[in-house]
Amino acid sequence: MTAPPQSPPTRRVAYSGRRSLVVEGADPVPPPPGHVRIDVAYTGICGTDLHIYHGDMDGRVQPPGVLGHEMSGRVAELGTGVEGWRPGDAVTVMPLRWCGECPACRTGHTHVCHRLVFLGIDAPGSMQTSWTVPAETLVRLPYDLRLDHAALVEPVAVAVHDVRRADLRAGERVLVVGGGPIGLLIAIVARRSGAAVLLAEPDPFRRSVAEGLSLTPLDPRAEDFSATVDRQTGGAGVAVAFEVSGAEAGVATAVGALATRGRLVQVAIHPVPRPVDLHRFFWRELTLVGARLYDRDDFTAAVGLLGEGAIPAAALISRTEPLERAADAFAALEGGEGVMKVLVDCRAYGETR
Amino acid sequence: MTAPPQSPPTRRVAYSGRRSLVVEGADPVPPPPGHVRIDVAYTGICGTDLHIYHGDMDGRVQPPGVLGHEMSGRVAELGTGVEGWRPGDAVTVMPLRWCGECPACRTGHTHVCHRLVFLGIDAPGSMQTSWTVPAETLVRLPYDLRLDHAALVEPVAVAVHDVRRADLRAGERVLVVGGGPIGLLIAIVARRSGAAVLLAEPDPFRRSVAEGLSLTPLDPRAEDFSATVDRQTGGAGVAVAFEVSGAEAGVATAVGALATRGRLVQVAIHPVPRPVDLHRFFWRELTLVGARLYDRDDFTAAVGLLGEGAIPAAALISRTEPLERAADAFAALEGGEGVMKVLVDCRAYGETR
Repeated sequence: MTAPPQSPPTRRVAYSGRRSLVVEGADPVPPPPGHVRIDVAYTGICGTDLHIYHGDMDGRVQPPGVLGHEMSGRVAELGTGVEGWRPGDAVTVMPLRWCGECPACRTGHTHVCHRLVFLGIDAPGSMQTSWTVPAETLVRLPYDLRLDHAALVEPVAVAVHDVRRADLRAGERVLVVGGGPIGLLIAIVARRSGAAVLLAEPDPFRRSVAEGLSLTPLDPRAEDFSATVDRQTGGAGVAVAFEVSGAEAGVATAVGALATRGRLVQVAIHPVPRPVDLHRFFWRELTLVGARLYDRDDFTAAVGLLGEGAIPAAALISRTEPLERAADAFAALEGGEGVMKVLVDCRAYGETR
Repeated sequence: MTAPPQSPPTRRVAYSGRRSLVVEGADPVPPPPGHVRIDVAYTGICGTDLHIYHGDMDGRVQPPGVLGHEMSGRVAELGTGVEGWRPGDAVTVMPLRWCGECPACRTGHTHVCHRLVFLGIDAPGSMQTSWTVPAETLVRLPYDLRLDHAALVEPVAVAVHDVRRADLRAGERVLVVGGGPIGLLIAIVARRSGAAVLLAEPDPFRRSVAEGLSLTPLDPRAEDFSATVDRQTGGAGVAVAFEVSGAEAGVATAVGALATRGRLVQVAIHPVPRPVDLHRFFWRELTLVGARLYDRDDFTAAVGLLGEGAIPAAALISRTEPLERAADAFAALEGGEGVMKVLVDCRAYGETR
């Protein structure tokens, strides 16, 4: 056990109702037994954070809810009974807490626990200078991984999980529908698994980022889109499509591109039921696979990929704003133009790396 | 090579335009090299035959198209080069011809060949006294299997394929949505694989047949349907659902009943895109698997199941009409009331079994 240091007051970004954020002071939370207090370095803003900001998740997030679940930081203070960690250790957090008793947990699928508590949605998140979490959620970072890049571990873990759900084999042809941060990360992870990757994205800026990453971006609205997929796949269609757009048109694009026995991995959130061409699922014996979050192995693999430099983090991080200007960071992401991943710098006092 | 016997004139049932069938005479087709002429015993009427009869498949079936693909019979005459068969052998036919060159065939999925020729749709079928087919399509029947029961081999092969696509494990809980012949056969095959099977079917007659087969039929429109599924599955939902209804409501029933990581096997034909709750696929990490037709192993397994008496054929065959009254058989099936499987007796002269 370590003697608690003098903790400076915490600054945090809290959701305070539809389209409203406050940056406010708060007392740091001393770590209870089995918990750890982290000095947060960076927190990325996720599409889910935008949904919360828009008031779409008021059923789960009550003001003042502290946002954020894509993060990096350093261990600051240990609660009693915590072993294996020391202050200063570079960490990220796998932000899931499960019940261990529901049908999902009993069959080993704890990450989709029926009573899942997601830190940053159902419990306070990391968009604050000081964050106290259960020690089991910590994931160690390599000492030489930049902490801003390490804020991408969580979305990279999503991509790793999605590619794993696709059961991807080397040499298979893949279409990623949607070229936001998750779509690009899936494309990069799939390519690293040996797949030949096409990316469908209507937005020219996002296509230009994809181009810069040596991906093959296509405009799904272009007249020759289907012909191009045909040509690129010898007339067969793609073995795997990832639906990352969340749009009705994206589902049709993905299903239409699949080869016989192709697999569609459903990554994006669709708020309403979508028309799906079930006849094509029957006719070509297609498979649709839902993919949500990640497990510990995905998280560890994501740390490994970032540690090896396999993820072009610098190209994906468009902008970093200090915590006091978190509202600007949300506005930039909401505007969408020219922006991929936006980070909030949560470091309280100078450099932490 | 066998000397051709004196072939009697063939009688056949041909589709002659929307809602119209003719029973007519024709010359028997002497078997070309590699082909076999069969004296047909029985031909079952399938939902697809009804679709043809209704004119819904005029793009594929031109009058006079001879219907029928669920059949049994005896080898009558061999073309040159055919080995391993003798006149009198009891057979059924796996009614698929594939190209061997398309992307589906090249990856080993010949049964969903992009240029598949389905005998009884794209080529003349078995609803005639005499049917000439390629020898490779023949499947041997056990000598002691009744030929009327053997006409169920093809739909049983569908059920075997569907259950195999579900990757069903013993002890899993299953919901079959739709209690027609294919739904009941899936339920029976799944139960034999060790699953605990529920069946959702709104029609009381079909539920009564299911009851007679010791299945557990439920009315999906009943108020307590979801509560019953919950109770039967310890609150988890079913591991596997088979959508065999072809109805929009059936899709919702199946998706709504699935446990976390559950698999939905899409068996029925949906003529238009259906609204699908993709959020639930994401949230519970569900899988949807399209299943179409069967391969040779499924067909052989189906023969085995019927041979062992594992399929209650007598309970499923509601009615048998002679070929000359095929129109009555179609009318009975179309009326639907009190009818499960209807066979056409294609025997030209007396008993063939």
